[in-house]
Amino acid sequence: MLQNIRVVLEGTSHPGNIGAAARALKTMGLSQWVLLSPMEFPSVVASARAAGAVDVLEAVQVVDHLPQAISGCVQVFGVSARSRHISLPLLDPREAAGKMLKQAVQGETVALLFGNERVGLSNEALQRCQFQVQIPSNPAFSSLNLAAAVQVLSYELRMAALQSHLINGVCKKAQEPLAQVDELEHFYTHLQRVLQQVAFLDPAKPMNLMPKLRRLFARTALERTELNILRGILSAVEKRG
Amino acid sequence: MLQNIRVVLEGTSHPGNIGAAARALKTMGLSQWVLLSPMEFPSVVASARAAGAVDVLEAVQVVDHLPQAISGCVQVFGVSARSRHISLPLLDPREAAGKMLKQAVQGETVALLFGNERVGLSNEALQRCQFQVQIPSNPAFSSLNLAAAVQVLSYELRMAALQSHLINGVCKKAQEPLAQVDELEHFYTHLQRVLQQVAFLDPAKPMNLMPKLRRLFARTALERTELNILRGILSAVEKRG
Repeated sequence: MLQNIRVVLEGTSHPGNIGAAARALKTMGLSQWVLLSPMEFPSVVASARAAGAVDVLEAVQVVDHLPQAISGCVQVFGVSARSRHISLPLLDPREAAGKMLKQAVQGETVALLFGNERVGLSNEALQRCQFQVQIPSNPAFSSLNLAAAVQVLSYELRMAALQSHLINGVCKKAQEPLAQVDELEHFYTHLQRVLQQVAFLDPAKPMNLMPKLRRLFARTALERTELNILRGILSAVEKRG
Repeated sequence: MLQNIRVVLEGTSHPGNIGAAARALKTMGLSQWVLLSPMEFPSVVASARAAGAVDVLEAVQVVDHLPQAISGCVQVFGVSARSRHISLPLLDPREAAGKMLKQAVQGETVALLFGNERVGLSNEALQRCQFQVQIPSNPAFSSLNLAAAVQVLSYELRMAALQSHLINGVCKKAQEPLAQVDELEHFYTHLQRVLQQVAFLDPAKPMNLMPKLRRLFARTALERTELNILRGILSAVEKRG
């Protein structure tokens, strides 16, 4: 179950944090993870801090582009302490773990994104997130170490997995398959093209329209069949254009 | 309330862990803590890892004897991964945090003990504990970093305090005003008209399309401004028709 949770570290500066994150993941039973454009990796510092988790450290996938990092995932959760302009639904770690597990038990993959130590998640990454996860913290000092944040979220995921074992007698209805992030991106591209065609979106004055629409659909967790309906509507409008 | 929780680190080897623990405590709003016979302290390594929590680091009390460390406490909780000869009641971090808070709100002080990185809590310390706290972990690799364990317990304490409304939670933003049901009905009517106009919906063969779209948008809890955007798009399409 936990192997369907993909942890993604974006632009990590300190290799020590990468090693400590590997250790945190292994202690909690997570193993699928990706480094997106790490500043320094591989590194002896990372290996030292990984301690007995060098196997997990060495199994990490390193990629250069965000779409590769989250490809195949049905939902993307971004850990961020900040309030942002376009607000995503805000979850604490426990709520987020519950939602992620719900997908994971269906066999779906979900991504959990952590940003750079100093600047947090990039705007590009936040735009791909359906949910923002905020670790409750001291308002006067909210800066958790990166690996500490990975530990807290991994811990909540393990707790959620343990708890769902205790209640696995209840048979929930199988959920419809959700659209994957890559399919969603094709939809947004198509939507943008049609909005320009019908002169609702002016590329010279985008007015934040696409981020607003992304936020709207991000909240729904679109099913694949629903996405196909929406694509069909866009094509029908396009043909009349 | 959280200031009535006293965190005690017994015989810590690595000053880096002391600094990282200070940071973990401060992020979660804890401030009362004690180092019992640290191997190396004060230390520049500790200060570096404490980052913005140097004030908490410098406020630590350093003692040489266990009774001093737990003096004045009504209960002592020992964090230990091991099964011990004399078995104490075993709690997970969430249960332990609940019990500690219950005392803390009464104005009582409770101690939370963490042992040395390699050998864990001494037998002397475990003998003073009323409860053993075990962080659930991968049976194949249960060795959390010391500061990571401090982070997990501190996080659970903060969550417990938040849930009992003892401290203020994550700033959930005031919710945007949602669209009202009658506005939604106007939107669905408009949507249906446009779908017929672009020949996506055939009134003779409706194919359950409108119920599917209603279900999709019902899940989102559309905000009023979002509804206005969607109505705007429909009007733009209509005009081209």
